[in-house]
Amino acid sequence: MEKSRKFAVVLSGCGVFDGSEIHEAVMTLYAIVKNGGSYDIFAPDIRQHHVIDHFKHQESNEIRNVLAESARIARGKTKPLSQFDAGKYDGLIFPGGMGAVKNLSDFAFKKSNCSVNKDVEHAINEMVRMKKPIGACCIAPVIIARVLGNVKVTVGNDMSTAKALEEMGATHQITSFGQVAVDERLKIVTTSAYMLDADIAQIACGIENVITGMMQMMD
Amino acid sequence: MEKSRKFAVVLSGCGVFDGSEIHEAVMTLYAIVKNGGSYDIFAPDIRQHHVIDHFKHQESNEIRNVLAESARIARGKTKPLSQFDAGKYDGLIFPGGMGAVKNLSDFAFKKSNCSVNKDVEHAINEMVRMKKPIGACCIAPVIIARVLGNVKVTVGNDMSTAKALEEMGATHQITSFGQVAVDERLKIVTTSAYMLDADIAQIACGIENVITGMMQMMD
Repeated sequence: MEKSRKFAVVLSGCGVFDGSEIHEAVMTLYAIVKNGGSYDIFAPDIRQHHVIDHFKHQESNEIRNVLAESARIARGKTKPLSQFDAGKYDGLIFPGGMGAVKNLSDFAFKKSNCSVNKDVEHAINEMVRMKKPIGACCIAPVIIARVLGNVKVTVGNDMSTAKALEEMGATHQITSFGQVAVDERLKIVTTSAYMLDADIAQIACGIENVITGMMQMMD
Repeated sequence: MEKSRKFAVVLSGCGVFDGSEIHEAVMTLYAIVKNGGSYDIFAPDIRQHHVIDHFKHQESNEIRNVLAESARIARGKTKPLSQFDAGKYDGLIFPGGMGAVKNLSDFAFKKSNCSVNKDVEHAINEMVRMKKPIGACCIAPVIIARVLGNVKVTVGNDMSTAKALEEMGATHQITSFGQVAVDERLKIVTTSAYMLDADIAQIACGIENVITGMMQMMD
């Protein structure tokens, strides 16, 4: 019997325009469990950059917390990312959504001059130090690039984001539906998900390929 | 080639404690697309009964709208349920979550004396009149029972809810992980989902069985 693999999933809120992309987050959890793994969900205990009314497609004047909103996807079971201990996990993964570039980092506003939330940066560096794999979907690979610099990732075929990735020292690999980019040296597995005009079955396929790719890299 | 089947998915917010259960909602969309169908997402344009902080597990004093929050799961593409036209769909489905019994109905507070949102009731009655299938997951079958009365449904093995269902004129079928109850006469397919202490792969299985069961009932 294979060893059960434990993943830490880092969310950034709940909703594609101001938090985690919900389909990507749920498909990440599903792919982990379907392939025999288990997960804990983490999020930083910080205020969201802003709140977007997803029906009206406009900013509202509400204030929401990233950890509390992420807990919606987690069915109430989230931990503050400040409590993350890399020693307890076999893999770390970041689903996408604008929360990755508005809450976990400020890439949405500062592009290649962005900075990354300190707890997120620490989690990534600790996993790399322990030679454990990290996955990222959709726009979240920009966070990996900002922290690690010289790393190979994909965001699909968006050339504007690819350019920003290269300005941060990363190499961008063009990919299509369901495909992943693998950086063997740093154990980084990424997929475009909804960076392409994909449907939910296509993003599920790419995300499962990230999870199984990460599992192959685990000791 | 099989005819593509179009589903209307009715959401009730975004989060298990005050809206749609997110895993169930996303797995419903996934099962539809994976099996060759397509979907539109609807929700009533009403104020949520209340807002629960899903991390602290306590009520907050925020005000949120069911349609706007449902749009988070829909990636911005939702329609007010008042615009639902049964003639345009092959099937209607209700994922679970407390929103089904706090926003789409008041079953959470009034049990077998509950009432159902008028647009929800209209949508169900129209589908039955046109002999088209309806699916419901988790706690949402109570809505079907309240509207249709003499109907066979399942909520798993929760005997308190089963008693309330029978008080409303329905027949409850005990089911386990992944199983569905089928009312052939009214074309109603239900599954327990997170009414049991299930994992995400188990609820995905039951929900896919609802979708494929509904597809078999379509003309």
